Amino acid sequence: MKSVVLTKQDSPLKIEDRDSLEPSEGQVIVSLKASALNRRDYWITQGLYPGIQYPAVLGSDGAGVVSRIGANVDESMIGLDVLINPGLNWGNNQSYQSSDFQILGMPGLGTLASEVLVPAENVCPKPEHLSWSEAAALPLAGLTAFRALMKQGLAKTGDTVLITGIGGGVATFAMTFALAIGMKVLVTSSSDEKLSKARSLGAAAGYNYGTDDWGKQLKSEHGMPNLIVDGAGGAGYGVLLNLASPGGTIVSYGSTAGAPGKVDLFKVFWKQLRLIGSTMGSANDFDEMLDLVSRHNLRPVIDCQFEMENITDAFEQMAESRQFGKIVVNQPV
Amino acid sequence: MKSVVLTKQDSPLKIEDRDSLEPSEGQVIVSLKASALNRRDYWITQGLYPGIQYPAVLGSDGAGVVSRIGANVDESMIGLDVLINPGLNWGNNQSYQSSDFQILGMPGLGTLASEVLVPAENVCPKPEHLSWSEAAALPLAGLTAFRALMKQGLAKTGDTVLITGIGGGVATFAMTFALAIGMKVLVTSSSDEKLSKARSLGAAAGYNYGTDDWGKQLKSEHGMPNLIVDGAGGAGYGVLLNLASPGGTIVSYGSTAGAPGKVDLFKVFWKQLRLIGSTMGSANDFDEMLDLVSRHNLRPVIDCQFEMENITDAFEQMAESRQFGKIVVNQPV
Repeated sequence: MKSVVLTKQDSPLKIEDRDSLEPSEGQVIVSLKASALNRRDYWITQGLYPGIQYPAVLGSDGAGVVSRIGANVDESMIGLDVLINPGLNWGNNQSYQSSDFQILGMPGLGTLASEVLVPAENVCPKPEHLSWSEAAALPLAGLTAFRALMKQGLAKTGDTVLITGIGGGVATFAMTFALAIGMKVLVTSSSDEKLSKARSLGAAAGYNYGTDDWGKQLKSEHGMPNLIVDGAGGAGYGVLLNLASPGGTIVSYGSTAGAPGKVDLFKVFWKQLRLIGSTMGSANDFDEMLDLVSRHNLRPVIDCQFEMENITDAFEQMAESRQFGKIVVNQPV
Repeated sequence: MKSVVLTKQDSPLKIEDRDSLEPSEGQVIVSLKASALNRRDYWITQGLYPGIQYPAVLGSDGAGVVSRIGANVDESMIGLDVLINPGLNWGNNQSYQSSDFQILGMPGLGTLASEVLVPAENVCPKPEHLSWSEAAALPLAGLTAFRALMKQGLAKTGDTVLITGIGGGVATFAMTFALAIGMKVLVTSSSDEKLSKARSLGAAAGYNYGTDDWGKQLKSEHGMPNLIVDGAGGAGYGVLLNLASPGGTIVSYGSTAGAPGKVDLFKVFWKQLRLIGSTMGSANDFDEMLDLVSRHNLRPVIDCQFEMENITDAFEQMAESRQFGKIVVNQPV
């Protein structure tokens, strides 16, 4: 099998031939058709992730065909077109992941390879309307967005949601899902180009958070949103506390801008705010996410696609954060 | 009518004779038997509350007898023994108060007086098992505790709740209610005497937050609580983020220690925490709180009682923060 290998921090990614994988009991091998990058993969290449083990085969997102199965796996799975739920060992509690929870790709072998080994319960039939590239783009960011918006955010048709950092994988899926269920979607970005793209996809309005008074402008034009989905945190979090309507919810699925400078608890209790953390999602969340995608024929927004041999270019694209939607890596046909 | 009047900031409280109150349509006059202090009253005397208007008649808590009624109020209310819901104009939404919401006592005339005027819907029959002093001690802090614990915290029988700053009115009611529904209750205080008192009332354990490793000690002895009810915020809030179990909830009803130094959003999203603000409560919350109190024959913990003429002593007792439970002010018999 071909694998993209990170041998140590800051070293270039290498494509290596490795031994084929052998499925144990309950496991399947997926021969991958396409994979996709997540910010997590990039951070690991930068040494900015807890518990990195080298050599690492990165990649959490993938779609392909079940080619081999271990003992006690239904034989009818062989040949099935699937995408992979990258959450391993979530456990039985819907409200949080178990302490054994892992994300596919480091420390285990990931999807930036010609094949990957996963528990049989982690593969799901590929929604028929999706191409291989689209299917590969969906899992991690789609799951994270679905849980943040629907499960933790309790998003409701007709409500207004503010989604920060549009263009990012999770933010863009959150917009897609919110529009699908009939929400009014407001977005932010530091790029006017991304805001314009979001509007063309259905966002009601976009605000450049690099401007001083974007919060006031949003408030005067659209009122206070009762749901905010944020992956940034940082100094901008204070603006979100101001913007959230009384009784409103802010779901955090990341903190790319670091810890908030200050959280004004007076605002939190007087406005009866709900600040909810969310990460990835359960197998149940994944099934519900796929159901939403299939019912509405939703398609992931793909920014660009690379062949596996050009994997370094794919990571450079992510390093620049200019993408709108997912970066997909296709296997040679 | 006699009233305790604050004429300006830092001036001594004076007892004045004022004109009797006249009920308008839908209003009732309650001849008060007892009142109780809240931290809010003390803050107003210190000028530490938004929008203070002088002269002010303070006091949010009271119980007494309906003595006069305005037009369109059922005549059967006259002579009824009642306690008062101090939340005015909550509005129709259970999840937050309307922008017209006010708390009884500044800017309106409060309960530190021989009588008080309130909308008829703000009086409820006094639970029969409560004395006048106990009934007066219940409303504001009981309502705040009930909403924080039960409505925002979704407290469940058998779960563990950590209640910070035990001895404070809201914290002490939260403990009473949590024990009544069969929760395991852990408490904190900077006073070992208060911790000891809390244990004698049913708390499973108490931790002095003035010690360095109280959080670690709690964790090793009782695991991580899935619900925390906090009125302090401040630097200690970070410890609460560590202590809350994955999927756990921290309800904030106050921030007497100021804004948290830092909120680690990574912890919030990775642990799938729920940080919920709560203040006072709706009329519906008030009814449910009274129902809980009546079903379980619960009695407010009263720290000390004063006659109205000694009101200055009552405020001094609050200034020292040494009380465990409520400070009650009784009318002359």
